Amino acid sequence: MASQLSPTETLSLIKANLAEVLNPEIIDDVILNQKRPLKVYWGTATTGKPHAGYFCPMMKIAELLAAGCHIKILLADLHGYLDNMKSSIELIGFRAKYYERVIKASLKAVGVDISRLEFVLGSSYQLSKEYTMDRFKLEGLTRFSVAQKAGAEVVKNDDDPYLGGLVYPLMQALDEQYLDVDVQFGGLDQRKIFTFAMENLPKIGYKPRGHLMNLMVPGLGAGGKMSASEPDSKIGLLDSPEVVEKKLRKATCVPKQVEGNGVIAFVEHVIMRAIALKVDGESTLSVARKDQEPLVYDNIAKLKEDYAADILTPQLLKAALTHHLNTLLAPIRAEFAASPEWQAIEVAAYPVEKPTAKVKKVKDKGDPAKRAAAAAAAAAKKQVVAQLDGHVEGPGAHKVNMGGSSAEESLEKLKVAES
Amino acid sequence: MASQLSPTETLSLIKANLAEVLNPEIIDDVILNQKRPLKVYWGTATTGKPHAGYFCPMMKIAELLAAGCHIKILLADLHGYLDNMKSSIELIGFRAKYYERVIKASLKAVGVDISRLEFVLGSSYQLSKEYTMDRFKLEGLTRFSVAQKAGAEVVKNDDDPYLGGLVYPLMQALDEQYLDVDVQFGGLDQRKIFTFAMENLPKIGYKPRGHLMNLMVPGLGAGGKMSASEPDSKIGLLDSPEVVEKKLRKATCVPKQVEGNGVIAFVEHVIMRAIALKVDGESTLSVARKDQEPLVYDNIAKLKEDYAADILTPQLLKAALTHHLNTLLAPIRAEFAASPEWQAIEVAAYPVEKPTAKVKKVKDKGDPAKRAAAAAAAAAKKQVVAQLDGHVEGPGAHKVNMGGSSAEESLEKLKVAES
Repeated sequence: MASQLSPTETLSLIKANLAEVLNPEIIDDVILNQKRPLKVYWGTATTGKPHAGYFCPMMKIAELLAAGCHIKILLADLHGYLDNMKSSIELIGFRAKYYERVIKASLKAVGVDISRLEFVLGSSYQLSKEYTMDRFKLEGLTRFSVAQKAGAEVVKNDDDPYLGGLVYPLMQALDEQYLDVDVQFGGLDQRKIFTFAMENLPKIGYKPRGHLMNLMVPGLGAGGKMSASEPDSKIGLLDSPEVVEKKLRKATCVPKQVEGNGVIAFVEHVIMRAIALKVDGESTLSVARKDQEPLVYDNIAKLKEDYAADILTPQLLKAALTHHLNTLLAPIRAEFAASPEWQAIEVAAYPVEKPTAKVKKVKDKGDPAKRAAAAAAAAAKKQVVAQLDGHVEGPGAHKVNMGGSSAEESLEKLKVAES
Repeated sequence: MASQLSPTETLSLIKANLAEVLNPEIIDDVILNQKRPLKVYWGTATTGKPHAGYFCPMMKIAELLAAGCHIKILLADLHGYLDNMKSSIELIGFRAKYYERVIKASLKAVGVDISRLEFVLGSSYQLSKEYTMDRFKLEGLTRFSVAQKAGAEVVKNDDDPYLGGLVYPLMQALDEQYLDVDVQFGGLDQRKIFTFAMENLPKIGYKPRGHLMNLMVPGLGAGGKMSASEPDSKIGLLDSPEVVEKKLRKATCVPKQVEGNGVIAFVEHVIMRAIALKVDGESTLSVARKDQEPLVYDNIAKLKEDYAADILTPQLLKAALTHHLNTLLAPIRAEFAASPEWQAIEVAAYPVEKPTAKVKKVKDKGDPAKRAAAAAAAAAKKQVVAQLDGHVEGPGAHKVNMGGSSAEESLEKLKVAES
């Protein structure tokens, strides 16, 4: 698709649908003068299961891929591990694998070419001597107040933060250098980290990067939120069509109110953009109505107008979103269902907690087969972890550097344990 | 000497002349139950040239060696580099070599067996993956206020400190684990860092260590100071007997005042303890007087009594100290004079600044030979650095890890350049 775009069209697609672009001249220079793919970094800590909210950055990444960019996705496994040291390093390794699967499947679902999509594990370089030396240098140049302000919107930052949180903005700056990119992409909440990076990389001899910032979009859950801490509001990327429908029914969607409406925002920033990107498939958003012609939208302005006028009601909009979101999720579910490897990764990455309370037992009663499968998987995982734990104290560095091979090895062991 | 001491005598010598001992039971267990040499760590950043004040920790280290301890001296080259990034990594490597020479020579001058003396470069492990991972862990557990308080007396710590300074107490804790020691030795100003280490190492799975703390002794300079920022007050370990005499003449030494008197303190904590340790050589401090019998002291109490009564005047005390300090420095000077290698290290570690102002030129006029030598050395050094600089950008990690071989290599190049 990239080859079909002119340089101007490429630039336009790169900068489309964003809240802000910092140092756009860096991007212009790469596309207009250097005439090569723009290298873009986006990072995510590998913690809880990615949910439908992930489609917001994914949609921009899809556009960047469509514009011929080379995307480097940092799977920040080290951050994932350090944020919650109760999880083992092995577990976080499996989560990184899980994230890679989910992100790839999501982008394929949107229909973009992922041949210029690359995944990099944070642990593959963030523990290296060169990186550590540069971290020392930045730490020596950065005052407490500066680091605190840089991370204020992203890191848990009360008056007396942990040093770990203070160091993250410095690392995010260094990541731009070590991932060898032209620009970093992130949410508007990353703005202070991005300006910190632009100001400080040159102080240790590295060039400043450009920055692409996504709009902050209200969530799909009740009250406009969709966070991991509210599991019921979270639409999983592997949720069944029925579950998606049920969860969307609970989403807050005030009639006639467009601003701050998570359902409208999702339609605008995910569904409409997915439709715009797709060469084949549906080219409009269609809203079925009983005993009436369907409402058909090819742009968000008209949709918002109808919603404000209550022509498009919350019920109608939710039903349409349910259809389109399920269409988007269908290939992801299909890929998961067809991949025993991915399924094994899921079991290892998000082990089912043992039921302890009576209430849970009652719940399980309905599906004894499911319970038996979960128990078997948990036992297998336990065995693998026991095997792996023997190595943890010894070659610590190797275990930490849980790159492809290490996670694959673990997976192999898991398979053996399961059979 | 150690083999001649009973366990009780060993323990007594280990704990002698200290301000405080934390977790003494760790030391008791090693000596009484495990019956092996106590492993002790003392650290120093490799920055300016060590001066006579170094004899205060050296004297305790000498006692520890005499008590059969295994001493690991951390040459904190990374700290030396990060504290002043204007110095090149090569320069700091030469300084570490210089420190090693000076410390060895000082301890030999005191007459102790240095076969259990070991030197470790900070850069040899503080950039490793394991250490970095542990630093991440401690950073994740340590709040800003805790790190700030821990380093308050040692690190430059205003209300808004650099993150680099905040990280040092964490590293000093990890060093205890990575140097594999039983106890850490340091000045009383390290107390908060030591308690931080005892409280936090167990949180990441390591055992707490014991801590030996030296008294804080007033300096020898004017006003009781002897700092690198007041070059005239600093007695170099390689200063000539005449320079030592001249500098001591300037030292503040209020008649009859024992408390806070840097000259008395130096006699107490260096000269008298050196005399006590020496098997051969002088066994008393002798103060020559004109037309009178010399005053002879075998303990500090009598000396202080006489000083308070003005029987021992500042002039007499200074003359005696000049004699004894020069006796202590003589073998260090002799070793330096006999070692072209050490001389080459000095040239590379502390390059002579080019005279730029006219005033300096006038000063130099008196000794054209000295000036020519300095110019030649500077030129040689420049050549070496130019050769080395080519490598800096490339294999950064290797250059940073300026262990024995790297510094030796540089030295070889220096020799070639000089010949």
